[in-house]
Amino acid sequence: MKKLYSKLLLLVLLLPLWAVAQTPAIQRVNPTNWWVGMKEPKLQLLVYGPNAGTLTYSVNYPGVKLVKTNTVENPNYAFLDLTIVGSAKPGTVQIVGKKGPQTVTQTWELKARDNSPKGQGVTQADFIYLAMPDRFANGDPSNDKFADMRDPNHDRSNGFLRHGGDLAGAAQRLPYLKDLGVTAVWFTPVIENNQPLTNEGGTMRASYHGYGFTDHYNVDRRLGGNSAYKSFVDKAHAAGMKVVQDAVYNHIGNTHWFIQDLPMKSWLHQWPSYTNTSYRQQPITDPYSSQIDRKVTLDGWFVPFLPDLNQENPYVANFLIQHAIWSVENFGVDAWRIDTYMYNDQPFMNRCNAALLAEYPRIHIFGESSVNNVVDQAYYVRNNIDFKFKSNQPGALDFVLEGAMVEGLKHDGSPQRMYEALAQDAVYQDPGKFVTFLDNHDHDRFLSVMGDDYDKYKMGLTWLLTTRGIPSMYYGTEILMKNLKNPTDAEVRKDFPGGWPGDKQDKFTAAGRTAKENEAFQFVRTLATYRRDHPVLHSGKLMQYLPQDGLYVYFRYDDKGTVMVATNATDKPVSMPTARFSERMTGFTKARNVLTNEAVSDLKTLSLPAKTAVVLELVR
Amino acid sequence: MKKLYSKLLLLVLLLPLWAVAQTPAIQRVNPTNWWVGMKEPKLQLLVYGPNAGTLTYSVNYPGVKLVKTNTVENPNYAFLDLTIVGSAKPGTVQIVGKKGPQTVTQTWELKARDNSPKGQGVTQADFIYLAMPDRFANGDPSNDKFADMRDPNHDRSNGFLRHGGDLAGAAQRLPYLKDLGVTAVWFTPVIENNQPLTNEGGTMRASYHGYGFTDHYNVDRRLGGNSAYKSFVDKAHAAGMKVVQDAVYNHIGNTHWFIQDLPMKSWLHQWPSYTNTSYRQQPITDPYSSQIDRKVTLDGWFVPFLPDLNQENPYVANFLIQHAIWSVENFGVDAWRIDTYMYNDQPFMNRCNAALLAEYPRIHIFGESSVNNVVDQAYYVRNNIDFKFKSNQPGALDFVLEGAMVEGLKHDGSPQRMYEALAQDAVYQDPGKFVTFLDNHDHDRFLSVMGDDYDKYKMGLTWLLTTRGIPSMYYGTEILMKNLKNPTDAEVRKDFPGGWPGDKQDKFTAAGRTAKENEAFQFVRTLATYRRDHPVLHSGKLMQYLPQDGLYVYFRYDDKGTVMVATNATDKPVSMPTARFSERMTGFTKARNVLTNEAVSDLKTLSLPAKTAVVLELVR
Repeated sequence: MKKLYSKLLLLVLLLPLWAVAQTPAIQRVNPTNWWVGMKEPKLQLLVYGPNAGTLTYSVNYPGVKLVKTNTVENPNYAFLDLTIVGSAKPGTVQIVGKKGPQTVTQTWELKARDNSPKGQGVTQADFIYLAMPDRFANGDPSNDKFADMRDPNHDRSNGFLRHGGDLAGAAQRLPYLKDLGVTAVWFTPVIENNQPLTNEGGTMRASYHGYGFTDHYNVDRRLGGNSAYKSFVDKAHAAGMKVVQDAVYNHIGNTHWFIQDLPMKSWLHQWPSYTNTSYRQQPITDPYSSQIDRKVTLDGWFVPFLPDLNQENPYVANFLIQHAIWSVENFGVDAWRIDTYMYNDQPFMNRCNAALLAEYPRIHIFGESSVNNVVDQAYYVRNNIDFKFKSNQPGALDFVLEGAMVEGLKHDGSPQRMYEALAQDAVYQDPGKFVTFLDNHDHDRFLSVMGDDYDKYKMGLTWLLTTRGIPSMYYGTEILMKNLKNPTDAEVRKDFPGGWPGDKQDKFTAAGRTAKENEAFQFVRTLATYRRDHPVLHSGKLMQYLPQDGLYVYFRYDDKGTVMVATNATDKPVSMPTARFSERMTGFTKARNVLTNEAVSDLKTLSLPAKTAVVLELVR
Repeated sequence: MKKLYSKLLLLVLLLPLWAVAQTPAIQRVNPTNWWVGMKEPKLQLLVYGPNAGTLTYSVNYPGVKLVKTNTVENPNYAFLDLTIVGSAKPGTVQIVGKKGPQTVTQTWELKARDNSPKGQGVTQADFIYLAMPDRFANGDPSNDKFADMRDPNHDRSNGFLRHGGDLAGAAQRLPYLKDLGVTAVWFTPVIENNQPLTNEGGTMRASYHGYGFTDHYNVDRRLGGNSAYKSFVDKAHAAGMKVVQDAVYNHIGNTHWFIQDLPMKSWLHQWPSYTNTSYRQQPITDPYSSQIDRKVTLDGWFVPFLPDLNQENPYVANFLIQHAIWSVENFGVDAWRIDTYMYNDQPFMNRCNAALLAEYPRIHIFGESSVNNVVDQAYYVRNNIDFKFKSNQPGALDFVLEGAMVEGLKHDGSPQRMYEALAQDAVYQDPGKFVTFLDNHDHDRFLSVMGDDYDKYKMGLTWLLTTRGIPSMYYGTEILMKNLKNPTDAEVRKDFPGGWPGDKQDKFTAAGRTAKENEAFQFVRTLATYRRDHPVLHSGKLMQYLPQDGLYVYFRYDDKGTVMVATNATDKPVSMPTARFSERMTGFTKARNVLTNEAVSDLKTLSLPAKTAVVLELVR
């Protein structure tokens, strides 16, 4: 793949030579359309085609003004700075390019904004389900593969190939998810990944996961394309559910159309020889770090086949920001998950977040910064630390809490680490906006990390669904899907049984699940629906007590209700006196066990089974 | 010991009954004297004696005004609020108390301030040596024991008993310490601990360590009393060395004179039944903590025989603050180490720190807060986190860095944890003011934690003496003293061999040390004297690079010099290319190895022996 990297460099140098010979033409305009009535009047159109940068442009449309035409190193690009005034009407804009006797005209739509829900946000009232669309459900076998795509294969027996799951299939399972208590669906990226399958020295590089975009403005045809995505969002909204889009700013696929004809050298982070990111968080926040360590973390490539975008380049920044807004406006998504957040240029991220929040004040934004301490995690969100750089990101995936919950359970079955992680929440401005999780598509599956210990599985899920934050769950957790990432990531990205026509087992139905799987499903469902229906778990305060002797007690509480979560992490039943918790329990006389529906008539001493997190709704 | 706690409560109730019968008298005035010309004109005298609180007081002395006499629950106390104007002259003040026909007159000295050094502070230019005076050197066998003290014994064979070490003995070893490169001496507390030796259910409670004061205004007679301490400070100053006093605000010994006749119930943190502190940091900074958990951490007793002072009581606060200032002014100490800092009332600590800094702007203050993460550590110093409470403490003992260095070396011989700890320094306002260490009188000795691995011992000491912070070393480390705290703390508090007349070995001299001990001594001496003599290690910036493959490189640098510390933590020699470090190495062509004094003629690739931290002074 280092060879390919060299080829990219060569292309940048050679392209102008052959390009000048061609007749000017316009092949692409990005964004592919826009809307009237957006808050931000400025828009920068990327216009691409042979010698498109040699044309002299004009736009004659009421309320649309071409302020400036920017040309760059590669004559096949022009960047048109427009302003669109508030009074502009929807319609078809003619973009006219002239060069000598030649005139090129390109139509471009300025649409009316519709009233459908968009940017609704996700909050602690939600429960997010993360699915990989290629591996969840196949609703349209006709789009499983396309001969004209770089990877034309479809083979469910091969973890690196496309399996045929799609947005139509996911849409069919919305009732299943709603029944489970899910209120929001987050797919790994749906945008076109028309990447080849490659084998570099035995390492397979596939794109079924979606993190190597090849055309920002097309949803992958194998998932159903733009229309299927819009349809999914509409159906989810109709069912009262929300959709989270997985955004990738840091890099694109190395067969992205603009990588094949780079606008300019500085479009990407270019290195004298291939340089990978160190994947290390410290150089960014370390007051003692070197320039080179910072540069490698930020500008090193994530992997050789995912070129690293240079967001300090204003054309790149505009392109990415406008695509984000276009996506929300066009598809109506509600929240925005950002891949590899910490590897992006942070001033760019602030601009991008601010632009999204300006258009969609309720949208939630939460990035992936895989860090191992609260200080570094705080750096990437609105925080209470006087860093030189101040992030404006509202939330983030809570990797620190994931590590604390999972490692604690794994190593000694203890809630101590979880307690200690939460106890450092003072560094964040709003820890309730973190999206919490126990695993994801990049991690070993939770149940396997627990060594198939079902008690630990239940404890972890109980914590996830009752402590602060916006819980998310990786698909299949509810039916006890497991596996470690061994030998490859594909092991934790197995097809959901029943998602494909003809599957022998259909675990979307109770009849298709084993007794244990149904027990797990009902366990998640009970907690999730209880959470969904009880605002105290959305907006109630948290109070946690020092764990003692393996017992960890916390409360969610507000004026209307109090939920007590009492974990006995030891392997023996315990009778726990509750006098210590009087600050939260005074005035309550009994309780209902949320998971068993049993009544608890005496709160003075609680019977806690071994390795169990008991959830009690306190009653006056 | 719980029985004793009940007795204390009983005393508070009963004492007024017998006290009222007595003729008023004054037995104590604290502070025992004061000075003219202090910045703070207010002073609160604690006057104690039978029915001292029933007297009507007057003070007739130019420039000294008795503003108010405060009486409290116990009639044996009066608290006199004085103001001492700037123009007051030194002299003997008559404190007159009247009751009916009776007049009690007590003289009290108002001294002139002398010009001797005091409150000089310790900085990164210093190297602190921590010694336990009872266990370091015995200069005056006549003060080894006193029949009129509660523990009248002296027995070097018993770890719980007094061994006879004293300040005169330590003073005799100042040339040894100066030769080693030490610039400041920190003793565990020297104040009177006239406590009995007790045995509670097999747990011995001794006071040789000094943390249970029984009279704030007397240095323990067994250490030589106030005069020996003043003499030690003067000799240290004459030798160009500084003295750190170990202060204890949180608690006192349960035989402290005022505990035997409590001024008021609220003088101490009183509980319905004995309550120990949880020793847990989290409830203080946890935004979700309960009142009871916070109260137990702060107001729970450190151990049953060390009653917990209530610093929210203004009389207690004044008593402690004035004693701190009195100590610095009277003895001339330069820095102030504060025991169990995190268990003190933090608003009180801020008042106390501010009072010391107002009188002695250069004094350094560094507390002991044994925490395990940088967020909690930051809470107790001037920090960059927007906590609701803002500490004004300039420095602290760096427990996080100790843990990172020691645990990293212990578990995998790796500098990774050290690197990661330092990388979070952005939370502190001035991390250079932390006092760094590898062990102390409460921890297992460093060499034993390293499993007697001399290579790790040297790596740790090299890091300690070259990275940021004010290094401190526990006595005997330089002669390879070791041991774990098994079965008791006394194992890590052994007598320094040669400190007692007649000791068979005298490790204060090269002749008395083994070859290995001399090697270790010279190793520490070489690093410490190099540090002492090179300002780049005092005030130079730090730059650290991401550890890679067990190699960890950092620099201290300023306009005048650059010191490179290159650690090869692997067990194989390595040739390390240095191109990556060009930001710090450009312009330098050679180097001197500080530890071996060898010249390094080529900096392009460095030869790093296995398990070694190489210290290079770069040369242009």
